Amino acid sequence: MNYSVIRYIIGWVIKLEGLFLLLPSLVGLIYLEPQGWSFFFVSLLCLGIGFFLTGKKPENQLYFAREGFVTVSLSWIVMSLFGSLPFMLSGEISHPVDALFETVSGFTTTGASILSDVEVLSHPSLFWRSFTHWIGGMGVFVFLLTILPMAGGYHMHLMRAESPGPSVGKLVPRLRDTAKILYGIYIVMTLLQIVLLIAVGMPVFDALTASFGTAGTGGFGIKADSFAGYSAVSQMIVTIFMILFGINFNAYYLLLGKHKREIFKMEEVRWYLFLIVGATLIIAFYIRGFYGSVFGALHHAAFQVGSIITTTGYSTADFTLWHPVARSVMALLMFIGACAGSTGGGIKVSRIIILFKLVKQDIHRYIHPRGIKTLRFDGRILDKGTSSGVTGFIGTYLLIFTLSVLLLSLNGFDLETNFTAVASAFNNIGPGLSLVGPMGHFGIFTPFSKLVLIFNMLAGRLELYPVLVLLAPSVWKTKEPGRGNQKRGLL
Amino acid sequence: MNYSVIRYIIGWVIKLEGLFLLLPSLVGLIYLEPQGWSFFFVSLLCLGIGFFLTGKKPENQLYFAREGFVTVSLSWIVMSLFGSLPFMLSGEISHPVDALFETVSGFTTTGASILSDVEVLSHPSLFWRSFTHWIGGMGVFVFLLTILPMAGGYHMHLMRAESPGPSVGKLVPRLRDTAKILYGIYIVMTLLQIVLLIAVGMPVFDALTASFGTAGTGGFGIKADSFAGYSAVSQMIVTIFMILFGINFNAYYLLLGKHKREIFKMEEVRWYLFLIVGATLIIAFYIRGFYGSVFGALHHAAFQVGSIITTTGYSTADFTLWHPVARSVMALLMFIGACAGSTGGGIKVSRIIILFKLVKQDIHRYIHPRGIKTLRFDGRILDKGTSSGVTGFIGTYLLIFTLSVLLLSLNGFDLETNFTAVASAFNNIGPGLSLVGPMGHFGIFTPFSKLVLIFNMLAGRLELYPVLVLLAPSVWKTKEPGRGNQKRGLL
Repeated sequence: MNYSVIRYIIGWVIKLEGLFLLLPSLVGLIYLEPQGWSFFFVSLLCLGIGFFLTGKKPENQLYFAREGFVTVSLSWIVMSLFGSLPFMLSGEISHPVDALFETVSGFTTTGASILSDVEVLSHPSLFWRSFTHWIGGMGVFVFLLTILPMAGGYHMHLMRAESPGPSVGKLVPRLRDTAKILYGIYIVMTLLQIVLLIAVGMPVFDALTASFGTAGTGGFGIKADSFAGYSAVSQMIVTIFMILFGINFNAYYLLLGKHKREIFKMEEVRWYLFLIVGATLIIAFYIRGFYGSVFGALHHAAFQVGSIITTTGYSTADFTLWHPVARSVMALLMFIGACAGSTGGGIKVSRIIILFKLVKQDIHRYIHPRGIKTLRFDGRILDKGTSSGVTGFIGTYLLIFTLSVLLLSLNGFDLETNFTAVASAFNNIGPGLSLVGPMGHFGIFTPFSKLVLIFNMLAGRLELYPVLVLLAPSVWKTKEPGRGNQKRGLL
Repeated sequence: MNYSVIRYIIGWVIKLEGLFLLLPSLVGLIYLEPQGWSFFFVSLLCLGIGFFLTGKKPENQLYFAREGFVTVSLSWIVMSLFGSLPFMLSGEISHPVDALFETVSGFTTTGASILSDVEVLSHPSLFWRSFTHWIGGMGVFVFLLTILPMAGGYHMHLMRAESPGPSVGKLVPRLRDTAKILYGIYIVMTLLQIVLLIAVGMPVFDALTASFGTAGTGGFGIKADSFAGYSAVSQMIVTIFMILFGINFNAYYLLLGKHKREIFKMEEVRWYLFLIVGATLIIAFYIRGFYGSVFGALHHAAFQVGSIITTTGYSTADFTLWHPVARSVMALLMFIGACAGSTGGGIKVSRIIILFKLVKQDIHRYIHPRGIKTLRFDGRILDKGTSSGVTGFIGTYLLIFTLSVLLLSLNGFDLETNFTAVASAFNNIGPGLSLVGPMGHFGIFTPFSKLVLIFNMLAGRLELYPVLVLLAPSVWKTKEPGRGNQKRGLL
């Protein structure tokens, strides 16, 4: 294990976080709220530690997939620990586990809160909660890549470990350019949403935090009733942007280039949109009596469907009160999640498609034991690695899921609460059903349960393996047979 | 598709059922209950139709895997339809969907009932309900094999389609001898249980029905309170036999032969027993205050664990009232199920072990991208087909499961009821939680939901593919490309 490279990169991550923390400090200045100081102190602390750790470039730049996973997981943990300090310092969230839960929930774009009332928080804290969504949505390493003047090819390992979905494709030959394009699209879309929301009359602070949460598909709101209090037109804008941020960003890159028609070949995007339309219609049908008009039912159905499938977690209505069919559809969407390569969480539409195709192939094999059928995705043949990776992923997913529900059941709450709390944390959604529904909160759990859920959020955001690798004893052995065979980072 | 062979085999199945139906008729004679006549009439009907269908041996005996699946699924459906007729004729279960539900629940060894009070049923009906468990437990084709004087090797396709677990091994070179050994063990163990139960003072009729239900891991009882009313010692006998019938029958064959020590190499059996002991201890700890003494807690925990992991479904206690941890452990056991090659249902312990190994391999591959690690089971290397079959199975399982829960949610009941009703039907267990707990019943559902659950029970018992193959349009095409490549039945 090359510890000096890991140290160096984590140093950079801390330095970046120090810079990000200046923003909430500024918000404190504007609103003349003393809580801004705690953000400023932690910002200085981060910058100091960051500069100390990055003072010396590592001599040995050998870098393997293993180091990539470890670096990414450790960075996310370190980032969350530092990010939770201001909450503790200002005393707004005094218990360390609670502060960590809130911060991890922010960075992982989950949006589950332990607070029973967010409206008592100061502006800097509200800003930071929403801004962690924005940082975590696209990923801190993609950002690092755009600014870090470092040679060597180990970036790919970092980006692969942090990016959602079965496989990361480079948009352009140079990874750094890919990162710049991704962040460019991300920033432009976020700005567009901010401008539109302000244009329809939303206060600037609300528009900023709402857009950060939408872009990162996070879900922290600044109001106790989430989005229920805003105007219908601003709810519609948020609906559209939630859905847009759940699309594979490659689609937007294609839109910018010459091959616009390639978009229609993206199976995942087609299914994603089809699922949204289908679920909205079904739910609207079952809640038609709830909101006065057909338009009202469609409006609230679309907002909630967009919010849950993209794992954002905003709400305009308490869907725990809806008809069981509508609730079941919502529970199903929680697991499906958004597109790979978007900021959304969940299992991802592409994995579900591949799973369906594997099942179809399996049935085909039973009917024609010697027939051969190749799996295709987006018209290309799926290699064995991707498809077995998908089944391995879903298997691991189920095992962690089951174990977490068991651990949560120690609290003595009902199955629906435990089941959907884990589903919500693991898929980075935010609200669950029953006690952790849109109007409930996660403060009801014991610190131990919160730690389980923190693990779920991180494992969900980083797609299991980076976090599991951290737990595998063999990773920490200094010498190991077969190491020479590993894929090297320096391409 | 070779329809004449399918017709011929189904004819034999109906004939067999006609013979089986003579037993409840006899019970009617003994107890002088008129309901015996309806069983007698249906018995004659079956024998008539059976002899008609088997009158002419099929000329073309070409037989493919496809025909095997179709024959097995159709036979189970036909068997259930005829088996439900006496209930309708006697008027004891008048609605056709209810009668079919009860019969499918019997043959698939589920044990879920639509009746709110079983004690009002006549003796012939009670006997038939329990006896369907015994027939369905080992499988009607294994029985057919022992008596059917037919040449050709297509038996393997039938047995493979009907047997539970990832792979069917022949115990001895000739399949017919394997079938005889299996049924021999099955009959001897059932008789042993009957004798023991009578010896400790259980009435003969109760001992018979209880043993049929235990042997088939079914779960239909003849009392409203299932096993709560019997003596502790008879409950203990049932506990032990439930666990024994959940073990891979190969183990008993090994016990009879020279290679007794091979048993200890059976990973699945080791894990199965470990799970039972572990779950019993955990549950006993959490319900220690419930039953007065440590012994009482262990006793009831062991009975319920044995009942649920083997998917039998008997109960001595209402576990919906237990501590949430105990309930979560029970819910988990529902999915794990018994050993492959036993009469129990569920996903099967061996599939769970293989899934765990796949996950471990997957994590290993992430750490050492080029390392090679072979999967082993029972010390032998797992071939690619078995392991990918397991993931395909679990994928299909999840898809059907999710869809069924969605369809059931149309009823408007709570998630826990819908979720565990499907889990219970699909894993052939019997009771669920909430409204379908040990003290509830399945009569609360609409006929449509009951049909969904009937599909679940059949798909669960036949392990998905035979039933799915029936739904695949390509199976019913007369001509098809690539047919020459299929595995032929005549070995």
